[in-house]
Amino acid sequence: MAKICASIAAENISGLVAQAKKAFDTGADFVEARLDFLAAEQVMEASERIDKDRSILTLRPKSQGGRFPGSEEERIKLLRRLAQKRPMLLDIELETLQRNDNLADYLELASIPILVSWHDFEKTPPNDSLADRIMEMRLYSNYIKVVTTARSIDDALRLMLLYENAIGIHPIIFAMGELGVLTRVLCTLYGAPFTYAAIEKAVAPGQLTIAQMRQLYGGIRSS
Amino acid sequence: MAKICASIAAENISGLVAQAKKAFDTGADFVEARLDFLAAEQVMEASERIDKDRSILTLRPKSQGGRFPGSEEERIKLLRRLAQKRPMLLDIELETLQRNDNLADYLELASIPILVSWHDFEKTPPNDSLADRIMEMRLYSNYIKVVTTARSIDDALRLMLLYENAIGIHPIIFAMGELGVLTRVLCTLYGAPFTYAAIEKAVAPGQLTIAQMRQLYGGIRSS
Repeated sequence: MAKICASIAAENISGLVAQAKKAFDTGADFVEARLDFLAAEQVMEASERIDKDRSILTLRPKSQGGRFPGSEEERIKLLRRLAQKRPMLLDIELETLQRNDNLADYLELASIPILVSWHDFEKTPPNDSLADRIMEMRLYSNYIKVVTTARSIDDALRLMLLYENAIGIHPIIFAMGELGVLTRVLCTLYGAPFTYAAIEKAVAPGQLTIAQMRQLYGGIRSS
Repeated sequence: MAKICASIAAENISGLVAQAKKAFDTGADFVEARLDFLAAEQVMEASERIDKDRSILTLRPKSQGGRFPGSEEERIKLLRRLAQKRPMLLDIELETLQRNDNLADYLELASIPILVSWHDFEKTPPNDSLADRIMEMRLYSNYIKVVTTARSIDDALRLMLLYENAIGIHPIIFAMGELGVLTRVLCTLYGAPFTYAAIEKAVAPGQLTIAQMRQLYGGIRSS
């Protein structure tokens, strides 16, 4: 059965904890905690209040579509401290790793399980360029997340071809937007270790709810 | 591996025959020959020129989105004659069967394999009403085809729930439109005996090509 990771985000710790509980109660296998929705000083405490062994911790900067309110320096420090908690996966943007050799070296030496992520909120770049990106990402981890925006059905279809460039690793590749819903469903069938879903209401364009995903996967007949 | 049926349509017999050849060469398992694109007097000859054991024959009237140029009386006569050829499946609209008891009785007595079809080119009606429709269709055949138009992702998702109402038969249920592409891909995973595709260019909204479908299904890892 395909695994589902619920994206959770709240502006205070108790809200985030409540969402994590709800996500697991609703049938999520994992949660992605968007810690960047919190005040910077709440991040560490929040990370202790959710089940780290089933969590992806994410501290997305504004430059990558996130909300982290502090400075980049502060964010890098927090990522280091979050890494020390050893969550199931620590989500770190490719760009962050490329710009911060010290952080990347530390994560590698300490064998921190990271999910290297890369997003395009506007479009789906040509496959050649995405395949190159995946090669860069593989330098940092076997877990990679490539999320683009589907402007056409063709964008969604060709994105799925990238799984061929990702044999031997754990790729999570899908497209946002209504035309990308297909990829959010298919990705686990192509080898993605899990797909992302919302608890009740979509927090990203084209995101389905846990219940919708469960229903969709539940209908698939094993053949 | 999911089966693919290529929709073919041409305004003359040689064009249709060429398309059938191309469809099979391109990897289609079956073809749906849209005989209503031909002049009425060409229909029977065309039906003899394509491999009937791998064909669905369709003679769609204008009232159901087709192009058959003759009268309804002429169409019913042709359907009877096409039935006598015993193609793999003869596509007949639910409405046609309901309005023509004699035809329905003949098809049943002669055990002609038919695909009962129903289309909505505007919307996706509520699931309750579609489930009722499916019950009506089952009276005529175990092969049923329900095609709606997805105006939203929710339309596409809930349509897939109808497969639960179709246990024990061979349902082909999907939605047209860009937001329905998901259902065209998923339907075979839900139990549809095949999905429809175009040879090179889509002939229905949201239709993918044989090559696109093959590629999509090819990437799915058996688990």
